[in-house]
Amino acid sequence: MAGRTARRRITRIRVGGTAADDTETASTEPAATTVSEHADLLAAEEPLGIRIGGEAVSLTMRTPGDDIDLTAGFLFSEGIVGSAADIVSIRICDGSQCGHDHEADDAMGNIADVTLRAGLTAGSRRNFLTSSACGVCGKASIAELRVPGRFGLDEDQVQVPAGVLAGLPDALRRAQRVFERTGGLHAAGLFSATGELLAIREDVGRHNAVDKIVGWALRGGLLPLRGCLLLVSGRASFELVQKAVLAGVPVLAAVSAPSSLAAELADDAGLTLVGFVRDRSMNVYTCPGRVIPAREVNSPRPGRAGLGGGAEPGQPW
Amino acid sequence: MAGRTARRRITRIRVGGTAADDTETASTEPAATTVSEHADLLAAEEPLGIRIGGEAVSLTMRTPGDDIDLTAGFLFSEGIVGSAADIVSIRICDGSQCGHDHEADDAMGNIADVTLRAGLTAGSRRNFLTSSACGVCGKASIAELRVPGRFGLDEDQVQVPAGVLAGLPDALRRAQRVFERTGGLHAAGLFSATGELLAIREDVGRHNAVDKIVGWALRGGLLPLRGCLLLVSGRASFELVQKAVLAGVPVLAAVSAPSSLAAELADDAGLTLVGFVRDRSMNVYTCPGRVIPAREVNSPRPGRAGLGGGAEPGQPW
Repeated sequence: MAGRTARRRITRIRVGGTAADDTETASTEPAATTVSEHADLLAAEEPLGIRIGGEAVSLTMRTPGDDIDLTAGFLFSEGIVGSAADIVSIRICDGSQCGHDHEADDAMGNIADVTLRAGLTAGSRRNFLTSSACGVCGKASIAELRVPGRFGLDEDQVQVPAGVLAGLPDALRRAQRVFERTGGLHAAGLFSATGELLAIREDVGRHNAVDKIVGWALRGGLLPLRGCLLLVSGRASFELVQKAVLAGVPVLAAVSAPSSLAAELADDAGLTLVGFVRDRSMNVYTCPGRVIPAREVNSPRPGRAGLGGGAEPGQPW
Repeated sequence: MAGRTARRRITRIRVGGTAADDTETASTEPAATTVSEHADLLAAEEPLGIRIGGEAVSLTMRTPGDDIDLTAGFLFSEGIVGSAADIVSIRICDGSQCGHDHEADDAMGNIADVTLRAGLTAGSRRNFLTSSACGVCGKASIAELRVPGRFGLDEDQVQVPAGVLAGLPDALRRAQRVFERTGGLHAAGLFSATGELLAIREDVGRHNAVDKIVGWALRGGLLPLRGCLLLVSGRASFELVQKAVLAGVPVLAAVSAPSSLAAELADDAGLTLVGFVRDRSMNVYTCPGRVIPAREVNSPRPGRAGLGGGAEPGQPW
C-alpha cells in the first residue's frame, strides 16, 4: 500500500508590503518579498478500483489507508451489501499477480478485489442512479436518492449535551495525524454521546472518510450505530446525510454548512443534523430534540469499540 | 429553475462556560447557554440529470444556476465534446412536458437535455474510466486519468506577480454573493494575469463550480484560457487540475492544500499549481517560472470577456 503522504519540493513565496500596495501602479520601494524552497508533505491521492467478482464497479480517488474499510463502507453505502455476512472477502491487491507492464510503485494496492456471497449481484447503486433518472423531470431519481435507511432512526432518542457537540471539532483535530502534516485531509470521527472518540478516518474526500468509518463499523458488527455521533470536517452534503442514515447514526455534525438537500433528507429520515459547530456555537437544522442545551450530562455509556485502526473485526476478511 | 438558496427554521445553541468546563463532572453553576430560533438560508443542492439524445449519462448534485454552463463544462471536461460547435443545443427542462406524476416544485429545471452534432456519441468518460481499470493494478486507469490537454500549456509563459495571486482570495470572496448568505458554497474564479476578475461561479461542489467556468468559456469561444488564472476555494484535487489542463489554463491556485496526484498531474502537464494562498503567502508546487516574486507588474491585458452571468455567448444554445 502506498503512503498517506507524499513529499515534494515546493517554492514558498511571502509577499511583502500590504495588500493595498498591490493596487498601486507606482511604488517607490520594491516590496520585501521572500522566496524559499522547502520539502513539503502532501496528502496522498490515488485511485482505488473496486472489483466485484472480477468486474470493475467503481474507481474512487482516495487517500491510501484503511482500504478494506473504505471498500466495505462503499459496498454498504451503495446498497450492494446489507451486512458483513454478504461479503466473503476483500483483498487489496499489491500488484504482484499483475501481468501488466508497469512500475511497481504505482501498482501497489490500488485494487480492491471483492467476493460477495453467492446470489448477490455487483450492480452498483451509483450506476443505477445514473440510468434511473426520469426522462424530463429527474423526480424518479430524487426519489431513488432518498433511499430509506434499514434502521429506524426515530427509535434512537439519544440525548446529547450541546457542550459535548461543541467539543467534538477540537477532539477530531487533535486526533487527525495526517492533516497536521499536510493540511490537506478531510476527516470523519465517530463519537459516543458523551464525546468519547470511537474511530477516526482521514481522506482527501469527505465521503471516503465516512465510508471508511461505516466500513469499519460494518466489519466490527457495530451497525446500526445507535447512540453515536458522526462529525465531519467541512460541509455536510446530501451524500453524507445519506451515508449516516444508512448506517443508523442518529446525529450528524459538521464543522461547516449543510446544503438544502442534506437538511431535507435529514428531516425525512429523522436524523439530527447540526452545522457550523465552531466557537462553542452550533446550528441544529433538524430533529433538535436529541440536543440538550443545558449541561445535563448523561451517564457515561461504555465505548462501543476501541479506537479505529487497531479494531479487530470478527470477519475473516 | 429552483433558487440558489433555501430557507429553513433552525435552532441556534451557544454553549456557555468554557471548553474546559465540559470535562468537569461536577460544576457548581449551570452554564449560561442560549437557545434561539432563526430563519436561515442554506445553499441549495439539487440533482441535475444530463441527457444526451435522450439517454441519461450523468446525475450530478449541484447548486441550481448556470446550468447550461455546467452542462457544457461537464461535456467538455469529460471529453465528450471538444468545441462549442459539437453542441447543437442544451435545453434545461422545466418539467412542463413531463408525463410523470410529481410535484411541480421538484421538477423544475433539473434535467439538461443535450443534442450533439451528428456523429458524436454520448459515451461518458466517467463511465469509461470505471470499466478501463487494469484488472489487478489500476495502472491502466491511472494512465487514462492523466489525459493530456488539447492545448499545450508549455507555450503559455504568462508572468503573474505573486502580489496579484495573493490578492485573489479576497477578490473571490468579495464577489461570492451566495456564500455570504449561506457559508455553504464553493467558488471558482477566473482572473486575468493582472488580477481582473473575468468570471465567478458558485456551487456546493468545487468541481461543478469549475465546470461552470469552463462551460461559460466554451460557450463564449474563449478556450483555451491562455494567460488566465483559475482560483478555487478550498483544496485542489486531481480532478480540478485535470479540468484546468483541459481548458488550457496555465495557473491554478487554491486557498487550501493540493493532493499529491494534483501536483503530479500539474507537473506532467506543465501547469503552475499554487496552494495555501492566504495571509499574503503561497506555496508554488509546480512550474514556478510563471510566478514573479517581486512586484514587477505586467502591463495590463484587456479583459477577455465581461464578468459572468451576463455573458452573451455566440452559440445559439
